[in-house]
Amino acid sequence: MTELLSPSVRETLFEPLYATGWTYDAETDVLQKDFTFQDFTEAFAFMTRAAMWAEKWDHHPDWSNCYNRVTVALTTHDMGGVTSLDAKLARKMDQLLT
Amino acid sequence: MTELLSPSVRETLFEPLYATGWTYDAETDVLQKDFTFQDFTEAFAFMTRAAMWAEKWDHHPDWSNCYNRVTVALTTHDMGGVTSLDAKLARKMDQLLT
Repeated sequence: MTELLSPSVRETLFEPLYATGWTYDAETDVLQKDFTFQDFTEAFAFMTRAAMWAEKWDHHPDWSNCYNRVTVALTTHDMGGVTSLDAKLARKMDQLLT
Repeated sequence: MTELLSPSVRETLFEPLYATGWTYDAETDVLQKDFTFQDFTEAFAFMTRAAMWAEKWDHHPDWSNCYNRVTVALTTHDMGGVTSLDAKLARKMDQLLT
């Protein structure tokens, strides 16, 4: 079952993500990252691939796109804060870059 | 050639768009609309179709998506304000809904 993360579990789970550029905003309880691509096509291709996983896992990002940039904010709305699902989707998004 | 719109031309061009829910923000010089869909899949399908036209016309929206909602902001960054390209892309986005 998905549950809100305790601060210690959260930090353990998020630490590898901080290394790839994710940041955690305690005030909004959101995990976020700005991705920059070569151009719009690359940025939207990334979004399309990520969208498949989001739908598959029924866990969707709040995200915006401006030309070659994609800004992602992850939180688990149903739970009112970050959960392991957010870490899972963040890891997947990083994997999609490689 | 694409050029900034005079207020009168802008209003003529944007008036039919206002009727479908677009609004023009004079302060930011941006044409914007919130689209709501049945679910994430429908919202992202719309974005994918719109992305093809944006790339084809080399005119890209600033947009964000949160589950079934897509918020679009159109302006012509190169020109520093709205142009006929923004009206053209807005019309196309409306057409994609039908």
